[in-house]
Amino acid sequence: MKRVRTREIHAHLGEHLVMCGWIHAIRSFGGVTFVVLRDGWGTVQVVSEDESIATVPLESVVRIEGTLVRAAKAPDGVELKASLVTVVSIAQPPAIMMGKRTLSAGLPTLLDQAVVLNRHPARRALMRLAAGAMSSFRASLDEQHFTEIQTPKFVESATEGGANVFTVDYFGRPAYLAQSPQFYKQIMVGMFERVYEVGTVFRAEPHDTVRHLSEYVSLDVEMAFIESHETVMSMLQHVLSAMIHRLTQQHASELDLVGATIPAMPGEIPRLHFTEAKGLAWSLTGSDERDEPDLSPAEERSLGAWALKTHGSEFLFVTGYPMVKRPFYTHPEPTRPRYSNSFDLLFRGLELVTGGQRLHRYADYIDALTRAGVAIGPFASYLDAFRHGMPPHGGFAIGLERFIMQVTGQTNIRLATTFPRDLGRLAP
Amino acid sequence: MKRVRTREIHAHLGEHLVMCGWIHAIRSFGGVTFVVLRDGWGTVQVVSEDESIATVPLESVVRIEGTLVRAAKAPDGVELKASLVTVVSIAQPPAIMMGKRTLSAGLPTLLDQAVVLNRHPARRALMRLAAGAMSSFRASLDEQHFTEIQTPKFVESATEGGANVFTVDYFGRPAYLAQSPQFYKQIMVGMFERVYEVGTVFRAEPHDTVRHLSEYVSLDVEMAFIESHETVMSMLQHVLSAMIHRLTQQHASELDLVGATIPAMPGEIPRLHFTEAKGLAWSLTGSDERDEPDLSPAEERSLGAWALKTHGSEFLFVTGYPMVKRPFYTHPEPTRPRYSNSFDLLFRGLELVTGGQRLHRYADYIDALTRAGVAIGPFASYLDAFRHGMPPHGGFAIGLERFIMQVTGQTNIRLATTFPRDLGRLAP
Repeated sequence: MKRVRTREIHAHLGEHLVMCGWIHAIRSFGGVTFVVLRDGWGTVQVVSEDESIATVPLESVVRIEGTLVRAAKAPDGVELKASLVTVVSIAQPPAIMMGKRTLSAGLPTLLDQAVVLNRHPARRALMRLAAGAMSSFRASLDEQHFTEIQTPKFVESATEGGANVFTVDYFGRPAYLAQSPQFYKQIMVGMFERVYEVGTVFRAEPHDTVRHLSEYVSLDVEMAFIESHETVMSMLQHVLSAMIHRLTQQHASELDLVGATIPAMPGEIPRLHFTEAKGLAWSLTGSDERDEPDLSPAEERSLGAWALKTHGSEFLFVTGYPMVKRPFYTHPEPTRPRYSNSFDLLFRGLELVTGGQRLHRYADYIDALTRAGVAIGPFASYLDAFRHGMPPHGGFAIGLERFIMQVTGQTNIRLATTFPRDLGRLAP
Repeated sequence: MKRVRTREIHAHLGEHLVMCGWIHAIRSFGGVTFVVLRDGWGTVQVVSEDESIATVPLESVVRIEGTLVRAAKAPDGVELKASLVTVVSIAQPPAIMMGKRTLSAGLPTLLDQAVVLNRHPARRALMRLAAGAMSSFRASLDEQHFTEIQTPKFVESATEGGANVFTVDYFGRPAYLAQSPQFYKQIMVGMFERVYEVGTVFRAEPHDTVRHLSEYVSLDVEMAFIESHETVMSMLQHVLSAMIHRLTQQHASELDLVGATIPAMPGEIPRLHFTEAKGLAWSLTGSDERDEPDLSPAEERSLGAWALKTHGSEFLFVTGYPMVKRPFYTHPEPTRPRYSNSFDLLFRGLELVTGGQRLHRYADYIDALTRAGVAIGPFASYLDAFRHGMPPHGGFAIGLERFIMQVTGQTNIRLATTFPRDLGRLAP
């Protein structure tokens, strides 16, 4: 007998069939037992007159033969009238009730018991949104004739300098884990002009914050023959629009389940130059931090609130960050070389994307490294790309977990991550 | 003036336009200079009467204004008559001539100078084939309602036991790099039933062979409610068929460029049980290795040749490998528990895929670990999944670089990898 999945039930009304899955919830009354059966896609109500099913532990795996019928009171208006229940795997029931719409558990419990609690539909929805985000990210770039790449994770030298890098014992000598595919995506611009990667990056982040992880999924883009960082910002807006459109169109039920409000993408994302942003943040927060060459989390939040109030936009570009706070490969502003052709995109008051134009001439790299007092040797193969001819180029990186965190309104990035890794956590 | 890319030239014949790219080759005669201009997608012949272009070094980046015209003798029948050439970046020319159809360089040179030599159309074709393979792998599984996942790369314990695992300094304590997403893809079968991942895996492979790397891209699949490993083998054949179909349909020019012969997928892939395979290999090679619980590379080659000769198939399933050579989570053959419900897929005489049915009952895991004399503690969170109810399941992993190596007939996996990592190589 053919197995029918929850996603297909409406096409099989009236049929005698088999459904399989986990016992998500059980309640009995008046000699009748109602089971919520969960499979990989959804849930269905099962009704049985055999009371022995009521004693099967929650999360046990079962095979149920029965007839799918209309039932006005059942969720989705369909229920399975069970005629034969077979227990495939007996479970120890989880410590937390899975049957409610939301999981009533604190952060430590949710993380410690993620192996089981991530089976909950609301947790699962977050992961499906992440899958949809990756898929739409790639599709929007494929349409623009980008090539997907996979770059090495073992590297000889730290990308952004020595901080926050993990060291590996590489056959008896030290190697590092790539903090980003930055160097390789730039090198590969020399091959394909337009490249993207969806891959894990590694940051030895020594701070315990709600927005940092020690490994996360980076959605990286790099493109050639740009005019400036403006070309990159346009591409970013195009990609984000596609991602938001896809979530809205294909993941409405997941968004609903986690109570997410999908952002509207404005026709043009409002923008502030760093110098304007600093002055504005001063007036908004009352705290003068104009001497700091970066935006603090508090400044980002206040600027985000300002953009929403003034422009009705949940997105805000801040451009022109001081060169002193950007990595050595950053292209300066042609007319004000203290500032850079770079940007951050704030989304709901949090930095979601960093990007910009890069240097593309070999001599400029030698100058930049020399000025920074950094030895050139460890960058030899990276610099080879520029020695052998590179066009003006730039790119950006979106943090996948931050995107999901902000879209769904999670208060901690760990809640937007299937199995988060941080300073203290290596399991599950 | 709008920039036109090589991929679009046929739609712009007769137009005055701009093309950008790298100087791939130059030759002059009779006062006319012919330039092969390469951009991220292809090449176009440029003809110029201004001889100064002949002195621009190869690989320099240029912007060329001109008119696209039909030219019977030019490749593709089109050439760009240049009226204005602007040099964007002057290059140091590469040590190896890029203008030939194939690169005449040995393996060490190809690897040492990969930053530049991978710009060559024949090298680029390999990477485009890899991108096409990843994309069609995902598309074929999306159609089958799989969910894409991203699993942690930092793990607390080595997946397959202690061998070949890289150790990381994780904030002052040891962590390991995941040798595969095995444990997490199984755990996530408990969430989605059907999952896949495209991601980097790490193997501290102490042998210097033509088919091993220390990091590679693994195309991982895991699925629930299977009958046995046979269900998994059917899914694998479906996925591989889709990948081959996609390469044939959308990557004909790349396959041609690298001289690849795409394999035909037979209606049913021939199969041998391990015991049959051992006996047959003895008769084929004359060397009796039936006491060895695995197939040697020589046996794999001879069996591959046998399948081609006898069945006209470049693919061969070998099933039922001895339990002693398979990891502890392997499901035994129900009737002959010395052997397993597992398989390897040989492609052109090389193991391309490993897969099988896994144990799914908690008690079976405890038995298997105990019998193997392995402490249970480090597997606690993995085992939680089975304690809390798991269905029969199984899966497989395809090595992306091996697939590209075997499809394109490379003699060394390093040649099928953009920037390979091995015992001795961490750069470029």
